[in-house]
Amino acid sequence: MPELRKDPIVGRWVIVATERVRRPSDFLRRERSPREGTCPLCPGHETETPPEVLAYRDGPEAVADGPGWRVRVVPSKFPALRIEGELELRGQGVYDLMNGVGAHEVIIESPDHARSLGELPTAAVKEVLEAYRARILDLQQDDRFRSALIFKNHGAEVGATLAHPHSQLIATPVAPIAVADELRGAQTYHAYRERCLFCDIVRQEAEDGLRVVAENEGTIAFAPFASRFPFETWLVPRRHAAAFERIEDADLGDVAAGLVAVLGTLRRALDDPPYNLVLHSAPFGSGESPSYHWHFEILPKLVELAGFELGNGFHINGVPPEDAARTLRETATR
Amino acid sequence: MPELRKDPIVGRWVIVATERVRRPSDFLRRERSPREGTCPLCPGHETETPPEVLAYRDGPEAVADGPGWRVRVVPSKFPALRIEGELELRGQGVYDLMNGVGAHEVIIESPDHARSLGELPTAAVKEVLEAYRARILDLQQDDRFRSALIFKNHGAEVGATLAHPHSQLIATPVAPIAVADELRGAQTYHAYRERCLFCDIVRQEAEDGLRVVAENEGTIAFAPFASRFPFETWLVPRRHAAAFERIEDADLGDVAAGLVAVLGTLRRALDDPPYNLVLHSAPFGSGESPSYHWHFEILPKLVELAGFELGNGFHINGVPPEDAARTLRETATR
Repeated sequence: MPELRKDPIVGRWVIVATERVRRPSDFLRRERSPREGTCPLCPGHETETPPEVLAYRDGPEAVADGPGWRVRVVPSKFPALRIEGELELRGQGVYDLMNGVGAHEVIIESPDHARSLGELPTAAVKEVLEAYRARILDLQQDDRFRSALIFKNHGAEVGATLAHPHSQLIATPVAPIAVADELRGAQTYHAYRERCLFCDIVRQEAEDGLRVVAENEGTIAFAPFASRFPFETWLVPRRHAAAFERIEDADLGDVAAGLVAVLGTLRRALDDPPYNLVLHSAPFGSGESPSYHWHFEILPKLVELAGFELGNGFHINGVPPEDAARTLRETATR
Repeated sequence: MPELRKDPIVGRWVIVATERVRRPSDFLRRERSPREGTCPLCPGHETETPPEVLAYRDGPEAVADGPGWRVRVVPSKFPALRIEGELELRGQGVYDLMNGVGAHEVIIESPDHARSLGELPTAAVKEVLEAYRARILDLQQDDRFRSALIFKNHGAEVGATLAHPHSQLIATPVAPIAVADELRGAQTYHAYRERCLFCDIVRQEAEDGLRVVAENEGTIAFAPFASRFPFETWLVPRRHAAAFERIEDADLGDVAAGLVAVLGTLRRALDDPPYNLVLHSAPFGSGESPSYHWHFEILPKLVELAGFELGNGFHINGVPPEDAARTLRETATR
């Protein structure tokens, strides 16, 4: 059973595998992509994954774990956390830890092996978002979990081990430190100004226009003022909402269209760059927080992280976000 | 002039270049290593760097910017921050920024192009540490600066653009968020227990022994309990001290010996892995803080960071630190 261990200094939780590894060469072993043609996420290979927990398919022959699906969600074959067991919070001197309990699922975004999320029709992306929502709502029933992390690694350079388009969901008994830090900052701002910081940012970016990448009625995508990475882009709903999973059907279409606009433009402007897509949403049970505001962060990987960034959390970004946004806007209208 | 921009949500400062970039291909341009044989950091090429700010050399022919040095410090040819100018803190709506003022220096660790820091004799590493100390003490005279970041990228995979062994120093008008987060956590612990958290960790690790990598009279190196990366190792002085630059000569030897032990062992155990070495030290003017404790963090890069880590700050570490430490101990005694 993996362990969740807490760094006692900054409060960061880390998932630590506890299966014994023996030789140094074992440490370097990584999951490898299977050969093309044997993709376990492709239609017709449904038995190569654990049984599905959700799928969208129609028609009279619709059978679970059969083909004909448009979106399919399965437990991860290599879960970072285990679904069985109690949390058992405990201490070891100055340290805190608990059992590595959680859910780890794979959202297969499309039956098409070769088309990435940004190349799908908006209606198909909307169904992927519906699957995110449905899985989060289901996992919230389990009172061991406090947070659901949804993320996507596009490209082997950013950790994708399977080429078939997919996202991942990890439900954890703790909140990730990045969201915890955002919550704290947003609460401080709200206590002082009685406004949501993210709503203020959305307003300022929309007025300014300089860093806007794409807009529609429900969302705005922009290069954040203090972008850590070249072409970093956030997609934020205009209407205040703390938790993604409470989004209504009427609003999902705009989020899907916004994602397609951003991912499609990045693809065309930068020759299909590797990127990470991460959903930041309020931890479970934080209710309709007036200070937190869910959003997607899209982090293209165009340069290697150096020690400066990694060790200090202090980023050097060689591309002004204003220039990145202009390039993306010009690509979109080309 | 680059800008220092603050993320309004989490308070992270980012250095943003503001020189205009024009075509998307410009965004992807990176500094390239010069061909071997034309290394600008090698002896005989002193005129290819900006004039030195510090060097250790002996003998009657010792001349600044001539050969014969053992350690040499020069301003960076591609500085992330500029030494001239006023800070000019200002706001832009919800955002905060200031001019990108700072110092960026390169510490050339040895005249030997081919020997890495972990392969140098302890006495030579001690002189590198003396150069760190001397440069920090000098830059502290400049009251625009609040922090000095010292780091080393070993290997192109972690951002090294020159093969010749060197570290970098960046003095900044703000504290890096990683150190700010540590300060806050350590202060909270100290307020509750009236003890230094790092001192408590040192004590527990020394008693436990499970995660110890190397020890000497003045320092202990261990794989941290909540290691983010396989083989992550911290080198911590046993005696409480908030700021590295106040270290006494008598103690520098143990730190140098500890660094050589850790870096040499990592090199042998893992076939010279790329790594980042980062000094965490109290910001300037924090005095003899009873709660903060300087240390080195050594972060080998054996696996690619995935979106999970990058976007959530939530790491998955496939190697238990206890196993990593045992492997390193066994390598050291082999």
